Amino acid sequence: MADLWQNAMDHAVALARRAGEVVREALQDDRKVMTKSSSVDLVTQTDQKVEQLIIQSVKEKFPTHSFIGEESVAAGEPCDLTNAPTWIIDPIDGTTNFVHAFPFVAVSIGFSVNKQMEFGVVYSCLEDKMYTARRGNGAFCNGVPLQVSDQEDIKQSIITTEFGSSRDPEAVEKIFSSLRSILCIPVHGVRGAGTAAINMCHVASGCVEAYYEIGIHVWDIAAGSLVVSEAGGVLMDVEGGAVDLMSRRVVAANSKTIAERIVKEIDSFSPPRDDRDD
Amino acid sequence: MADLWQNAMDHAVALARRAGEVVREALQDDRKVMTKSSSVDLVTQTDQKVEQLIIQSVKEKFPTHSFIGEESVAAGEPCDLTNAPTWIIDPIDGTTNFVHAFPFVAVSIGFSVNKQMEFGVVYSCLEDKMYTARRGNGAFCNGVPLQVSDQEDIKQSIITTEFGSSRDPEAVEKIFSSLRSILCIPVHGVRGAGTAAINMCHVASGCVEAYYEIGIHVWDIAAGSLVVSEAGGVLMDVEGGAVDLMSRRVVAANSKTIAERIVKEIDSFSPPRDDRDD
Repeated sequence: MADLWQNAMDHAVALARRAGEVVREALQDDRKVMTKSSSVDLVTQTDQKVEQLIIQSVKEKFPTHSFIGEESVAAGEPCDLTNAPTWIIDPIDGTTNFVHAFPFVAVSIGFSVNKQMEFGVVYSCLEDKMYTARRGNGAFCNGVPLQVSDQEDIKQSIITTEFGSSRDPEAVEKIFSSLRSILCIPVHGVRGAGTAAINMCHVASGCVEAYYEIGIHVWDIAAGSLVVSEAGGVLMDVEGGAVDLMSRRVVAANSKTIAERIVKEIDSFSPPRDDRDD
Repeated sequence: MADLWQNAMDHAVALARRAGEVVREALQDDRKVMTKSSSVDLVTQTDQKVEQLIIQSVKEKFPTHSFIGEESVAAGEPCDLTNAPTWIIDPIDGTTNFVHAFPFVAVSIGFSVNKQMEFGVVYSCLEDKMYTARRGNGAFCNGVPLQVSDQEDIKQSIITTEFGSSRDPEAVEKIFSSLRSILCIPVHGVRGAGTAAINMCHVASGCVEAYYEIGIHVWDIAAGSLVVSEAGGVLMDVEGGAVDLMSRRVVAANSKTIAERIVKEIDSFSPPRDDRDD
């Protein structure tokens, strides 16, 4: 079985690279003719184009596999993580960055079997950085092994998070309250790349100690979660305990110490789950 | 005179590139042996080494010129912007990023005559992006002309800022209050690269619409301010009106419309000026 998944992983890497080319071309060509009012259309078109490219190619090669894709779910497909071999796809993580050509835009492809991540591929396509992780075999960026930071002092740490897209006053209140508590621990700094997938790859790379967010989706974090754990990091729920990829909440850190310290400061809440029935 | 300043600018570009090499080497070599407790020393050593490299070379070539350098001021040198030709230097903008090898670290060299910026050079040395601006001659990144975004709708804009290094409760209160007001306009997103110089270059590049901050120093923004204005952007004080590079407050935006809209939301305050007598 291991060989089969390695084969699937090689295919995922090739697809991520091809998808990244489509993203770069869209930025170079289409953005020139993009008017203010059509920017949302450009995102939607490129998102859908990239997701279809990935799903169609996987279906040909692995016809029995299942999918969870951001665009497919938006179009009404179910979002259930079953025991089946499942490709979890975010065609463009960081759509706001994409519209603005802000330098962090990722193609994220995770692969789960029996609800366990087997491999994760995050391609930061404007930086041309290919992050890969295979369960039990470590995490890499462009082939170079990744290792989380060994910093265990929260005051010497950089923490990343995002404000998210919700402007619901209650959510904003909690997001600001958590962020302020963490900043004033005090930590060394707070950053945010504008994409969950790349924030997680930054944890894996050791250039930040932790990332947390409430409101993300399974396709934002599935691949990145394995990149983090295979680089020696830990995943946790924002209230502590095991992470649940469908819960829309995650803490990814270099160590249990840092993760638990952050959890103490997070004013948590529970957005509707990705696998809710509605 | 124009030729003389072009000559000085060419020298600044060469020095920024050499300084960037020193920064990259420090990250590659010294960081491996860096212990947790010595990280501050590494910053100080590399900061000082880079600033000395720049100042000594300029002194040889332009013996009558003046300097304002972050490390020199920290060591007790005056911080006065006079009419003399003055090199305004931040050897490493983004020191927290530097310690963590977070990908945005800049060498910033501005040059002012009669209190007017003549050229600005910002070298983002981990990305290998050389931003340059000569008054009246436009702004460039690696030789490619820069143009600010034409987005005039604040709701379609990305705004960048930083939490800064102060953890003074009153300053933190105002920083969070401003940020929250801006986020909830609502804007498209809020980002922060962790360096003022690169945030300003992002405005010039058009990938974000504006950057604002209270608490920065003249060496953080001198070079970047010309990159912004030469790319078609505007500079403003956080309360509106003309920017004062010594006031530790700045708004840099793609347009007057966006700058003025942000100013409305900023809960301003006045840190001690860079040129105070104490």
